[in-house]
Amino acid sequence: MSAALSGGRNGRILIEDVYPVVDAGRYAVKRIAGERIEVWADIFRDGHDIIAAALLWRRQAETRWRREPMLFDANDRWHASFLPEEPGRYVYAVEAWTDRFATWKRDFRLKRDAGQEVGLELQEGLELLSQLVPRDKAARDLVVRVRARCHESRDPEPLLSDEFSAAIAETPIREDLTRSAPLPLVVDRPIARASAWYELMPRSQSSQPGRHGTFDDCIARLPDVARMGFDVVYLTPIHPIGVTNRKGRNNALKAGPEDPGSPYAIGSDVGGHDAIHPELGTLDDFRRFVSACQDFGMEVALDFAVQNSPDHPWLREHPDWFKRRPDGSIRYAENPPKKYEDIVNPDFYGPDAKSLWMALRDVVLFWVSHGVRIFRVDNPHTKPFPFWEWLIQEVKAQDPGVVFLSEAFTRPKPMRALAKLGFSQSYTYFTWRTTKEELSSYIYELTQYPVREYFRPNFFVNTPDILPLHLQGGERWMFKSRFALAMGLSSNYGMYNGYELLEHEPVPGKEEYLNSEKYELKVRDWNQAGNIKDYIRLLNQVRRQNPALLQTADLRLAPVDDPEVIGFVKESTKGDNAVAVAIALTGQGPRQFWFHFGDLLIGPPGRKRHVRAIENLITKERHTLEYGGVRLWIDPHHDPAAFFRCVA
Amino acid sequence: MSAALSGGRNGRILIEDVYPVVDAGRYAVKRIAGERIEVWADIFRDGHDIIAAALLWRRQAETRWRREPMLFDANDRWHASFLPEEPGRYVYAVEAWTDRFATWKRDFRLKRDAGQEVGLELQEGLELLSQLVPRDKAARDLVVRVRARCHESRDPEPLLSDEFSAAIAETPIREDLTRSAPLPLVVDRPIARASAWYELMPRSQSSQPGRHGTFDDCIARLPDVARMGFDVVYLTPIHPIGVTNRKGRNNALKAGPEDPGSPYAIGSDVGGHDAIHPELGTLDDFRRFVSACQDFGMEVALDFAVQNSPDHPWLREHPDWFKRRPDGSIRYAENPPKKYEDIVNPDFYGPDAKSLWMALRDVVLFWVSHGVRIFRVDNPHTKPFPFWEWLIQEVKAQDPGVVFLSEAFTRPKPMRALAKLGFSQSYTYFTWRTTKEELSSYIYELTQYPVREYFRPNFFVNTPDILPLHLQGGERWMFKSRFALAMGLSSNYGMYNGYELLEHEPVPGKEEYLNSEKYELKVRDWNQAGNIKDYIRLLNQVRRQNPALLQTADLRLAPVDDPEVIGFVKESTKGDNAVAVAIALTGQGPRQFWFHFGDLLIGPPGRKRHVRAIENLITKERHTLEYGGVRLWIDPHHDPAAFFRCVA
Repeated sequence: MSAALSGGRNGRILIEDVYPVVDAGRYAVKRIAGERIEVWADIFRDGHDIIAAALLWRRQAETRWRREPMLFDANDRWHASFLPEEPGRYVYAVEAWTDRFATWKRDFRLKRDAGQEVGLELQEGLELLSQLVPRDKAARDLVVRVRARCHESRDPEPLLSDEFSAAIAETPIREDLTRSAPLPLVVDRPIARASAWYELMPRSQSSQPGRHGTFDDCIARLPDVARMGFDVVYLTPIHPIGVTNRKGRNNALKAGPEDPGSPYAIGSDVGGHDAIHPELGTLDDFRRFVSACQDFGMEVALDFAVQNSPDHPWLREHPDWFKRRPDGSIRYAENPPKKYEDIVNPDFYGPDAKSLWMALRDVVLFWVSHGVRIFRVDNPHTKPFPFWEWLIQEVKAQDPGVVFLSEAFTRPKPMRALAKLGFSQSYTYFTWRTTKEELSSYIYELTQYPVREYFRPNFFVNTPDILPLHLQGGERWMFKSRFALAMGLSSNYGMYNGYELLEHEPVPGKEEYLNSEKYELKVRDWNQAGNIKDYIRLLNQVRRQNPALLQTADLRLAPVDDPEVIGFVKESTKGDNAVAVAIALTGQGPRQFWFHFGDLLIGPPGRKRHVRAIENLITKERHTLEYGGVRLWIDPHHDPAAFFRCVA
Repeated sequence: MSAALSGGRNGRILIEDVYPVVDAGRYAVKRIAGERIEVWADIFRDGHDIIAAALLWRRQAETRWRREPMLFDANDRWHASFLPEEPGRYVYAVEAWTDRFATWKRDFRLKRDAGQEVGLELQEGLELLSQLVPRDKAARDLVVRVRARCHESRDPEPLLSDEFSAAIAETPIREDLTRSAPLPLVVDRPIARASAWYELMPRSQSSQPGRHGTFDDCIARLPDVARMGFDVVYLTPIHPIGVTNRKGRNNALKAGPEDPGSPYAIGSDVGGHDAIHPELGTLDDFRRFVSACQDFGMEVALDFAVQNSPDHPWLREHPDWFKRRPDGSIRYAENPPKKYEDIVNPDFYGPDAKSLWMALRDVVLFWVSHGVRIFRVDNPHTKPFPFWEWLIQEVKAQDPGVVFLSEAFTRPKPMRALAKLGFSQSYTYFTWRTTKEELSSYIYELTQYPVREYFRPNFFVNTPDILPLHLQGGERWMFKSRFALAMGLSSNYGMYNGYELLEHEPVPGKEEYLNSEKYELKVRDWNQAGNIKDYIRLLNQVRRQNPALLQTADLRLAPVDDPEVIGFVKESTKGDNAVAVAIALTGQGPRQFWFHFGDLLIGPPGRKRHVRAIENLITKERHTLEYGGVRLWIDPHHDPAAFFRCVA
């Protein structure tokens, strides 16, 4: 027998196709604190009775729902919105019911206006009143008064009055009450959606060749980084580096006596993931670095790499965390036939897995307690998915402002899965996408529903591991173009240091840096001739001043009649700022082209209008639209990118 | 703490985006018995270990799963198929696991081929064997033998052999075993997907004016209906008609003494929904009619209208099934200010609702027991959705071959909801869609995933309630064109009798028939001049001979450079038949136009090829494609439609 007959909810009202939702509610939608969230649903029942609906929402940990009335739009679709002010986990749901009194009132009027006898109808309306018990005393008294008055006079007007409907609006007769499944929502700090990352290796920040860099050297570098306009200073691992099987320069199997090793071979007899490599300084030095970053309005991001040098203390302290081979040894990390002899991986499902998971969580919480709230996670796709879902929720339960960036350069489905499971941001394929078609289709993919609800791209132009082919020519316009693309297309983007100096010498035949500082100390002249620091500063200024560039979900590609120029328009979430961008993908030029806006509308909800003109955000030059577009001019060797404010 | 650490399934493998599925498995996918069902899913885990997957399926009532191995396609997507032979409710699920032995074997080979030392690896492989317990004795013996041999000789070959892998294929080591939620599937008889309906009012089948038609008159009409090529003879309600407030001719509020009343005012002192209107004959006569239809290869469909004349026996026998008004009376059906005084509706959530629901189910089962397996349900959208879901499942549990057609001419969302809840077929907006754009966008809507998985359209050209505007001119080409459209576009379609005679006199200003036989007896000359019976017969022959026309999900609109001609290509589920159709939507002509096939491929899976030529299914004229298309010629006044077999 149907649930409909077994008491409780009768299933008479259907609530379908709730928006937004990820995988039917298995995973959370992601949004930003202080941002209004629109919720839509199809809501309907049989017959012609009037229904009403409410959006329910609360913090996940709370029990009391807050309610927002839903409004009917069209075609059985309803909507409402809510505004979570603080980061955290929330849930929302849609509730609907048959509004018995409103149905009665509508039918009564229709019959009376058609001249039908309505005496019985009035009687039926009065009988409904016994179900009406407003919380407010004045309203309760009104119900009693109206009932008595209508009963006596047989005059329906008091019952039909707007005053009466208003008095009972808070406590309607909710027949057929139905509620959707609760849907999860993660609300993050704004920096989860908009962040400009500068990646550096602390040990290379010394100014003297051969001297190991320290946190003090890093502090000395901050004015330069801050002047370029970055938000996040991301450090590769800062922990003690193992000695056993240490890698030499250019990933050599054997290290020389002076070689510092890869910072990703974490742990030595000095300590593990919660220790600091002694040559960098002390924990106090690190804390000073964190607060120096804050002074410049920047945040520190640490690298979280779940892997251990054979010298990591955990190997001695927790032998159960590592799988033994038949001869008692521990297997090195490998991707057969490749071996990584300087690291071993813990066993996430071993006999003592529970304490391993908690220890890893505590590593993150340790750094949180020292002021770090952003973590770039190394290769999360080679560790179990359930571990990440658990760890991220555990950490965010302590501090919902913590941000996790997934460094998973892998297949599309695992990359998306990690984002669904909780990562706040994700590395992407941008690093290798260069043509207009590649960039356009990738942007389309990332800004589609529901991907845009859970996957926040972070476009890195380069990384210590990746010197993409197109940068290997060292062309200045190309470095500028790629920077403008990363920063313009994605509100989260990153740059690994050396990029501003146009570093571009590869391991021959590979997309890797020659003499990578992953395996050696490096000293650079940060002001060397030809650097593009001023260009970066200028573009980051444009970025900070335009909320349209501080989000990625609202990006519309614009037709540009030049296959080597990509054009797009971004609009801020509130609709108070729109930016048009044109970027040359070639060094050949100057180039002249049409940038078409067509029927694109911009502006706040309800006040959207066509674009009338655009104003160059740097030169202030103004172009008025003709035939729905503008004729633009770009000389890639002067500046491959043009950013415009849209005027409606 | 995560489920992953609480024992049982560890969640390490993700199974996502299973196809086909309706609303995340809340509703069943619909298919036809004997039709292979392709199932796809994204399946992946962390790292590089080899995974394997199986498609599980069974009848819902069974407990034992059948298993089909899934094959990897690309981009983490896997697929398999299964073949349910009988109608009924099924479930399917996807299971995946880490194949520990296959992973070992791959890694062993990679390391050995790279010249690495693999002694420990061999030892690890042998240790895996204790987990291998094949069901088959010979295979079990082989495992023991191989283990001993390899252990002694240190030669890995027996372990790496294909023979060994084959022996353990049935019982692999299933680590990280994960299963998707079970997804529901309804498998129907072929007639649920392909049916040509002929609707008639039994009482109008007499050949003498004024004499009430009988089932014997209906039997006499069958050769004519069968010759036209219909599959289903659908009768409007055959039950006793109420007397109280009976409607007169043309829906007059008062009936004259001779007026027979509307057959939708069901029930009199002679009986209710399980009785036969005495003037039509007896239950035995009805049974003879059912078997006469069978003799002609046709099936009977009955009308199931949940509404009662005030004289229905249930009002006396089950007063609790009807809501009383304050004065003790029962409310007539109404849609204020409209009133339907000749019917009252039962209360689906009244105090004795359970027995009402069961009585209604038993009405359907009563007619099933008398050979009726198709029901056209009147206005299901004005009765509660949960009732239909329950009733249809109850009836199909008794006879999974029963087919329900939803007559819900209402908003799109409730129409779809009824299909999701269980209706086998649905009336549509086709009846009013006339232009190429309207028809194209509607067909696109209906054949999209997931709508095509649960909503089977039934295109009616007219009904007793609907004489659409475009037929009111009585143009012969228009009647032919609309018939060809209904039959060509949708594998389920219907025609209400009189259409073949081009009946077209409306109530002035309305889309309703004047002197509707809903309120009076009618006698027609079925062979009157100008009828299109031969045209209908010809097209139904084409339909029956081409499986491509016996399904609707695979329909591709084809570009035709004439805004008044619609073109499309349908292909059979097995890929062994493809039909191209061009239909003129105007009477102006003759018309010449290009019908483009472009890159359309036809043929069985794996052997798809471009269309090379088409052959007219009636004239046998052949056209070879030039420039990817053919130049065609239609004279609407001769025949507005052309059907072609596609040759690849």
